[in-house]
Amino acid sequence: MNSGTICPLTRLIIMVMKKFLNDSNNLTTELLQGYTLAYSDKVKLVDDRIVVRAKPKPQDKVAVITLGGSGHEPALSGYVGEGMLDASVVGDIFAAPGAPKVLDALRMFKDYKGVLLIILNHAGDVMNGNLAFDMAKKEGINVQKILTAEDIAPGTSAPIEDRRGLGGAIPLYKIAGAAAEAGKSLDEVVAVAEKFNKTMATLAVTMKTATHPQSGQYISELADDMMEIGMGQHGEGGGTGPQKIASADETATDMVERLIPAVQLQKGEKAILVINGSGATTLMEMFVVFRKAHQILTAKGITVAMGRCEEILTVQEAAGFQMFLAKLDDETQKYLEAPSNAPYWVTR
Amino acid sequence: MNSGTICPLTRLIIMVMKKFLNDSNNLTTELLQGYTLAYSDKVKLVDDRIVVRAKPKPQDKVAVITLGGSGHEPALSGYVGEGMLDASVVGDIFAAPGAPKVLDALRMFKDYKGVLLIILNHAGDVMNGNLAFDMAKKEGINVQKILTAEDIAPGTSAPIEDRRGLGGAIPLYKIAGAAAEAGKSLDEVVAVAEKFNKTMATLAVTMKTATHPQSGQYISELADDMMEIGMGQHGEGGGTGPQKIASADETATDMVERLIPAVQLQKGEKAILVINGSGATTLMEMFVVFRKAHQILTAKGITVAMGRCEEILTVQEAAGFQMFLAKLDDETQKYLEAPSNAPYWVTR
Repeated sequence: MNSGTICPLTRLIIMVMKKFLNDSNNLTTELLQGYTLAYSDKVKLVDDRIVVRAKPKPQDKVAVITLGGSGHEPALSGYVGEGMLDASVVGDIFAAPGAPKVLDALRMFKDYKGVLLIILNHAGDVMNGNLAFDMAKKEGINVQKILTAEDIAPGTSAPIEDRRGLGGAIPLYKIAGAAAEAGKSLDEVVAVAEKFNKTMATLAVTMKTATHPQSGQYISELADDMMEIGMGQHGEGGGTGPQKIASADETATDMVERLIPAVQLQKGEKAILVINGSGATTLMEMFVVFRKAHQILTAKGITVAMGRCEEILTVQEAAGFQMFLAKLDDETQKYLEAPSNAPYWVTR
Repeated sequence: MNSGTICPLTRLIIMVMKKFLNDSNNLTTELLQGYTLAYSDKVKLVDDRIVVRAKPKPQDKVAVITLGGSGHEPALSGYVGEGMLDASVVGDIFAAPGAPKVLDALRMFKDYKGVLLIILNHAGDVMNGNLAFDMAKKEGINVQKILTAEDIAPGTSAPIEDRRGLGGAIPLYKIAGAAAEAGKSLDEVVAVAEKFNKTMATLAVTMKTATHPQSGQYISELADDMMEIGMGQHGEGGGTGPQKIASADETATDMVERLIPAVQLQKGEKAILVINGSGATTLMEMFVVFRKAHQILTAKGITVAMGRCEEILTVQEAAGFQMFLAKLDDETQKYLEAPSNAPYWVTR
């Protein structure tokens, strides 16, 4: 794709965006309409940009809410449903929603047992999430927040602002959502979610860039024989730099060997391993990678108690994946396995 | 991608396959290992190429079995699980499994109440499936078969050999599997599955080709500003020819307006609508397309009783999707909604 350096004429030609779109100004509205129509028995759209459960049970439970930009489908709204999120506040493509909209969502659940706001570490999400959080607290809403920042690309001792919140937020939603559904108090929900948050780590690898669906611009640049480990989900750097494409096994080995110490997994412990596709990488490849990572973990005496190969947080039609690893104990495993009817994370 | 006509040098450069692979001779083995490791609580691999349920309950039920090539993940093995398939017989990339392997699978279930073999209409699958079916019958196995051929690209009056079996097989697995799980007889399972089979229709659209993961060759050719409605899932023709890229709404309208008469859906009736992504097309786009098709059906007084936007049968990293439409009655809807724990079609 990035053949501009070879033949400028071709570069221009292949800049034609190959996507099924209408007027890009309406994109977020249209995608939310489509999503909530497709799963109308489970989710509905309120207040233009807030996805909530279709049939919220009036019950004495904690509400679990998140926020984030569009363009990463099924994240984040795909995880609204019984046993998982109560609401997702949606921004435009790759853009955080504004604080007033997040505050609207927090207010919707003010009569619940409490509200947990989960924020992925990206500047806009943090700014707007924190602002709404502070305003909600001033209004007397019983709200707490959790920040996910499990990207280990810059190193595990890097300052928090350098560590992005990647796909690990989704298993975290599952655990917090299941604890909330079980009737736990806000403090208890926060405690189990934070316990999991502290043991999780993600590393991304990118092979092919994608086009921004509104601007038509490439999200990043990668030569045709190169890949990059550690690239962010909007093409931000911070990775270990471009390298020649490696085999599936070499890539999986490199990544899992960095993740294991980050999670401090020891022999005899158990883990969840997720391969999350970026968009164009096939499930076939993800299975091959999963297999190698699983073999390495097993050889070290670590039990993969839960696995998942799926597109859970994407980057348009980029090729690549995120490898996610976290330590499990009986409590977090139980909540991961608890029932959910969220459209893109059904468990039974 | 297909910029060879513009700049031959670039064409060579971008032929580098951007996939995470090892030795391509081991690809099918490795992907099956990965899949069954990721979902080891649900599925296991037996006899090298047969995926079965991890914990088959010894019960008096009909077994539902399918066969097909790899490379279309999650199809077909992703649908093995309680309430859906009992077994999937796996071929190499885009290649049917041999008849002896299919016969092995049929024999495994000879003591069940009966065996239903579901074959998608592709030459190799039909040849090997039929051969195994005939041999199983000679051995006295109580087996029946169903052929899916719901592609309407060549027209609904085209001879059966021109109508491919596309993603519609997957909702059909769900219905047959749920009927089998409910303890129905082989005749009853076949009856409800054939009823659904007769009312279903699929149309595919392709925007960007993919590379064959073993040969590294393009699966088809499509210029950078073109798309094609009706292209087969291995790049076979039979479509309405390349056309300029249309908007999401134009594409959705064109496709659903061809599907509705094929399914003979009338005002007051209900339907299932599935947008099945080919690989690189984003869920975001699929939602936009779903929305338009849903609006058109609703405006005609047709109820979309079940919707799904997902990658259920892919074509490597091709961009495009299949639109699937079928008429539902209370019985088929009930079976579609029945519980399943198949890794890629969980319902609860």
